[in-house]
Amino acid sequence: MRIKKTEQVPSTEVTMEGAANCRVRWLIGEGDQAPNFAMREFEVSPGGHTPKHFHDYEHEIYVLDGSGMVVDGDQERPLAAGDVLLVSPNDVHQFRNTGDSPLKFLCLIPNSAASRNVTVVPECGLEPTR
Amino acid sequence: MRIKKTEQVPSTEVTMEGAANCRVRWLIGEGDQAPNFAMREFEVSPGGHTPKHFHDYEHEIYVLDGSGMVVDGDQERPLAAGDVLLVSPNDVHQFRNTGDSPLKFLCLIPNSAASRNVTVVPECGLEPTR
Repeated sequence: MRIKKTEQVPSTEVTMEGAANCRVRWLIGEGDQAPNFAMREFEVSPGGHTPKHFHDYEHEIYVLDGSGMVVDGDQERPLAAGDVLLVSPNDVHQFRNTGDSPLKFLCLIPNSAASRNVTVVPECGLEPTR
Repeated sequence: MRIKKTEQVPSTEVTMEGAANCRVRWLIGEGDQAPNFAMREFEVSPGGHTPKHFHDYEHEIYVLDGSGMVVDGDQERPLAAGDVLLVSPNDVHQFRNTGDSPLKFLCLIPNSAASRNVTVVPECGLEPTR
């Protein structure tokens, strides 16, 4: 059995195209040799966002803290602590922090995701004035 | 994409042998048709516990609220909010609420767990006076 405290797990900036002010901790990742899936914690600063993209594997998400919006295809839906999301394979999605405090969520992915492609969607619509 | 609020998901008493004062919500379960793994939320009342058992599939756990102890083989280790656990296949484990407020944690399992056996370990040592 492995036990860790979240704050002891290194946090790194998400550098993927389309991400802004977003950090990730691999709470259960490659080094842990979990048999089937990985657990990450994302922390999005106010005004920040994850990439708007899609891929052929799922996310299972639990919102820990903060508030924001999730892009779900061509809709935007509100997010708050305690919300649970199943982002199915090939769903276009993006998480945006529209609040004043960090938006934190767990995001779990299958181990098979490591070898899969991700397609970034152009960011039109992120800024309402464009 | 499916979005749910935790409190809208039905909570049911855990009736498995060896459980006491423990409830579960299947946040992402069979009806959601998630491709690889399921997300449950457990809520253990003060003094309650999950079964002491082992099985040939893993748990990935994130402690949301409260405090307690986890049995890890023949050891007991403290638990608090923000702790992350990988319970590997065949690890003997049990979660006990030793605090004054509900102990809540997420516990994810592979879909393949549905057809696997669980072995309950006798509860000697749960009551220090025995």
